[in-house]
Amino acid sequence: MPPVTFADVQSAAERLAGQAHRTPVVTSRTLDERVGAQVFLKCENLQRMGAFKFRGAYNALSRLSDSERARGVITYSSGNHAQAIALSGRMLGVKTLVVMPENAPASKRAATAGYGAEVITYNPAESDRKALAESLAAEHGYTIIPPYDHPHVIAGQGTAALELIQEVGALDYLLVCCGGGGLLSGCAIAASGAAPTCKVIGVEPEVANDAYLSFKTKTLHTIHNPPTIADGTRTPSLGELTFPLVLEYVADFATVSEDQIKAAVRFAFERLKLVIEPSGALGLSAALSHALPFTGRVGVIVSGGNIDAATMAQILTET
Amino acid sequence: MPPVTFADVQSAAERLAGQAHRTPVVTSRTLDERVGAQVFLKCENLQRMGAFKFRGAYNALSRLSDSERARGVITYSSGNHAQAIALSGRMLGVKTLVVMPENAPASKRAATAGYGAEVITYNPAESDRKALAESLAAEHGYTIIPPYDHPHVIAGQGTAALELIQEVGALDYLLVCCGGGGLLSGCAIAASGAAPTCKVIGVEPEVANDAYLSFKTKTLHTIHNPPTIADGTRTPSLGELTFPLVLEYVADFATVSEDQIKAAVRFAFERLKLVIEPSGALGLSAALSHALPFTGRVGVIVSGGNIDAATMAQILTET
Repeated sequence: MPPVTFADVQSAAERLAGQAHRTPVVTSRTLDERVGAQVFLKCENLQRMGAFKFRGAYNALSRLSDSERARGVITYSSGNHAQAIALSGRMLGVKTLVVMPENAPASKRAATAGYGAEVITYNPAESDRKALAESLAAEHGYTIIPPYDHPHVIAGQGTAALELIQEVGALDYLLVCCGGGGLLSGCAIAASGAAPTCKVIGVEPEVANDAYLSFKTKTLHTIHNPPTIADGTRTPSLGELTFPLVLEYVADFATVSEDQIKAAVRFAFERLKLVIEPSGALGLSAALSHALPFTGRVGVIVSGGNIDAATMAQILTET
Repeated sequence: MPPVTFADVQSAAERLAGQAHRTPVVTSRTLDERVGAQVFLKCENLQRMGAFKFRGAYNALSRLSDSERARGVITYSSGNHAQAIALSGRMLGVKTLVVMPENAPASKRAATAGYGAEVITYNPAESDRKALAESLAAEHGYTIIPPYDHPHVIAGQGTAALELIQEVGALDYLLVCCGGGGLLSGCAIAASGAAPTCKVIGVEPEVANDAYLSFKTKTLHTIHNPPTIADGTRTPSLGELTFPLVLEYVADFATVSEDQIKAAVRFAFERLKLVIEPSGALGLSAALSHALPFTGRVGVIVSGGNIDAATMAQILTET
């Protein structure tokens, strides 16, 4: 029995009904002309707290027992998952703690605290975030909800692709960014049930292509602190659950350069009027740069929009 | 018989079906908390060519006779209407010319030419754009489609409010930015038929409050080249058609400061993940700044997203 099935994604969709936004699907003829295909952008940047992560976090927290809820939840995250856990905890009345690196974007730290979580910072050069969370959990009885390697998180993330396919119908390709592989594997499982002929493509930065290498060689690769602007993909590797799911359900991988990522963020600003964070623009970037020969009906998960004003201003003022 | 009726708006909606985007309505609990009301943002920044103007332009061009189409269309515009005419002309196979001030935003000039219009620039300190268009029209037989003071344009713009009310139901308030009053009067006519108890509020910059003054005094006021960042509202006054329609259908006016406009653009970037141009953010700004005591269910027309990268970068880097 696989750890996550299409039925789990469908069940997560029921949990999320009325709690998550059913985000809009945006189309643009300018984009279609540039890509040479019919492109459907699933706008998870317009999701609650600005990213798809709300789906997995809420699904996971909603399935805790009463005693688990009473003790509270802890997680470690580069940002969006932290906000998602914080917001879900507030909605469900569950205490939440977030272990976050000192150098996480200011907007993400502020938003996490704003949603009501207790933020515990650490120096990423000195400490291991996972070990720190585990030690706190052991001491206080918290439940750990990791950012991607968890069945309920994966199933929740998959609802983004399920909604997209329900709204627009069958797809030839679905482009999904890949950090730890929770969104990618969840969406690939959703597509396997809802649009079985759709090829699901994982997209990574060239300089953070650990999942690409893991997929191509069928051996887990790890890259620590890659120098990419797409901070959501700085996770060192796929997880114990997500790696085999990616191998089973994903058709292929593509990579994009840092310049191509920034160009996609700028294209989204200028032509789509959408604020997309660099990690969230990976799929769009792969489509715009013809990273693979995409044709026909191409879905893209725009995963989030939580970009600092300073970073956006810099992208907009660079030529 | 009034020049524009609710039936005209309904007829325009039929013309626009399948041609204009049915733009999404975005909601945000953070926004609701800040405003103290339930807010529904009709995202015309996600409309084709990035603004509501496509609605009126397409409606007007689609109603031309064959001989009018063969001769071509001319207009004068600060930007978004120009792009809308250009795009509608390309879709309908009509030659288009646009008289545009030399100092119009670069993004708007480039996009207008990119959509296939011939751009004729003039020095706004020396020439009158309307007179220039009229002289060219007289010489070549072009039909003039002005940016707001035209029944088919007004009816087309009203479809934005019609769609919003059809999607979310009755509203207590509808906030609409006001330049020449085409969008405002069209939306007010739409609301009068679709949600008769809704109070439609026009919103202007404090420094470009000609329509506010005209409404309050029932005498047409004119303000030339007001120093506002909201370039879409630099029109000197309401029009011959729009002024009486505004007096009849609009419930009240509100004004916002330049800082409040920029704060709304920044709020949309940070919290809504939407790119909104300053003129397009007027309604949102009025809601966020409690310009009037809005309560209950509040609709806001987010009219456009065509803001230069340099202007957005400046807004994002100012404190």
